[in-house]
Amino acid sequence: MTTLLELTAGDADLGAELRASLERVVTIFDGHLESDLACVRELAALVERYRGKMLRPTLTLLCGLSSGGRTIGREHEVLAAVVEMIHMATLVHDDVLDEAETRRRGRTVNTLHGNEAAVILGDYLISSAFHLCSTLGRPELAERIGRVTTTLCAGELLQLTNRGNAALDEATYFDIIDRKTASLIGLACELGARASGASEEEVEALRGFGADVGAAFQIQDDLLDLTGDERVVGKSVQKDQEKGKLTLPLIRHLAQMTAAGRDDEARAAFEAAGDPARQAELIARLRDDGSIASAAATARGLVERAQERLAGLPESPARGLLAAMGEAAVARDF
Amino acid sequence: MTTLLELTAGDADLGAELRASLERVVTIFDGHLESDLACVRELAALVERYRGKMLRPTLTLLCGLSSGGRTIGREHEVLAAVVEMIHMATLVHDDVLDEAETRRRGRTVNTLHGNEAAVILGDYLISSAFHLCSTLGRPELAERIGRVTTTLCAGELLQLTNRGNAALDEATYFDIIDRKTASLIGLACELGARASGASEEEVEALRGFGADVGAAFQIQDDLLDLTGDERVVGKSVQKDQEKGKLTLPLIRHLAQMTAAGRDDEARAAFEAAGDPARQAELIARLRDDGSIASAAATARGLVERAQERLAGLPESPARGLLAAMGEAAVARDF
Repeated sequence: MTTLLELTAGDADLGAELRASLERVVTIFDGHLESDLACVRELAALVERYRGKMLRPTLTLLCGLSSGGRTIGREHEVLAAVVEMIHMATLVHDDVLDEAETRRRGRTVNTLHGNEAAVILGDYLISSAFHLCSTLGRPELAERIGRVTTTLCAGELLQLTNRGNAALDEATYFDIIDRKTASLIGLACELGARASGASEEEVEALRGFGADVGAAFQIQDDLLDLTGDERVVGKSVQKDQEKGKLTLPLIRHLAQMTAAGRDDEARAAFEAAGDPARQAELIARLRDDGSIASAAATARGLVERAQERLAGLPESPARGLLAAMGEAAVARDF
Repeated sequence: MTTLLELTAGDADLGAELRASLERVVTIFDGHLESDLACVRELAALVERYRGKMLRPTLTLLCGLSSGGRTIGREHEVLAAVVEMIHMATLVHDDVLDEAETRRRGRTVNTLHGNEAAVILGDYLISSAFHLCSTLGRPELAERIGRVTTTLCAGELLQLTNRGNAALDEATYFDIIDRKTASLIGLACELGARASGASEEEVEALRGFGADVGAAFQIQDDLLDLTGDERVVGKSVQKDQEKGKLTLPLIRHLAQMTAAGRDDEARAAFEAAGDPARQAELIARLRDDGSIASAAATARGLVERAQERLAGLPESPARGLLAAMGEAAVARDF
């Protein structure tokens, strides 16, 4: 959260407005998870700790400030809380699927309370998100949220089906990240624009901006999982390899090999997870043949395309900050 | 499904109307789970096999026929599909939590495709349910569905927290089943009534009817888990004991013991799961002190109260069938 707001240093008014609005988003979020049951309150409190960069709510608010009437209010804040709640649900369930132990520098819900509690907590978050959304009385927005959340689940399933698939190609990789990551970040932007009464052109520009930034963000996440240090990244790393998930740098690395060596190299990559020496050797091979640089360049290319999509919007501090957030998505090391 | 419709033998017109409407519910349900991804289609097809008595959709339709304008249409059918989809999601996730192997006489999703696929499939079903609901453009109904689904998750969490709790009391047991089972069956009834434009009195009578039948249904489910045969019940049995969940007959059995013996007897009950000789001895002890009969009597009492709630509705074949369904909920052995 701090990191994104640091970007507002150049505009104190926008920074103050965003900060105040994000605080209201957090209040709406926490208030909606309130329960008469102590066991629910205890688990919901863990979600607070999962809250990180607040990327999606920040995008909803900034898109609201960049389009249509260019003012934001309670509807933007509720929608921002809804999207963040769906995102938190996916984190909680993802950590179950990945058997991850660390998230935002703390222990995961599944590690602390078991897979069962994590599965139910995720369900509680999804239901609460849709319930919160229904209070706005805007079924056309609920339709978009339902559609994208369903798409996101389909993307997760496609990813699961391809675990251990040494022949995963780029098209399928992009299909997976478009569905599971880009779609929700695109939605966060779209909802902000719709709540501001933006034109369909503006809505589509901002949805596309979010989707491109989202795909770039996911590629950066995958790069960090491959090359990052858990102490810096703040969450379990090398989970993709451990779970047999090929990501862009590895796909490009394998594509440069002869068919004969590919299977062995994919298996070597999966088995290097958790073994510092073998991981270092793998990373060296991926640096040598340019696969890591090439994946990073693709992420940067997506950010550039995202920024071009902003050209049709009126110039504003909020639009400038959106462009800067695109940069930040690929420049981060956590 | 057949079993419930057998109850309509006395009224051929009502039977035909219900049968045709339930077929449309199934078409809406299956159509909404359609996907361009083969992996999603394959898993969604498994859900078809989970479809059993269609209790909740049948209640939605019958409540629509018993109240307000007393005719049913597409809105009732969509709502019936939404409630059934939420129910299916809970079955899929419950089987993960319970490590259950059999459901509706077939292997469970978690057994066939692993816990990961089952977790994502459940999420896909929840999201699809809310998405389908949003297409109706009735945010006040979406609000009720969101609220009840959240309540249901809270009930699951309360149940999980009390696993292995040998001191679980009746009040907490009823709190759990009211939240996790009665709430959704009450909602199925409420939605049918609301879609027919019923008065608030009728809506409340039918919601209460559903909640009472739902609680009775759950007690019967718990009795079948304790005393039933997997080949008759069609799903894994003795799961409650295996997972350390005390249910009504056991709670009443333990309440009759001295405090000193209670812990040992609770542990003996948990450990009897899967051991036919010890299970038979346990059941004999529960029959001897009247605990099983007492739980069954409580279920019957709930059904009677449910039936009394129907008194304020105009007499009709649909109302008669609702009353008969209450009986069937506690008379079944599967």
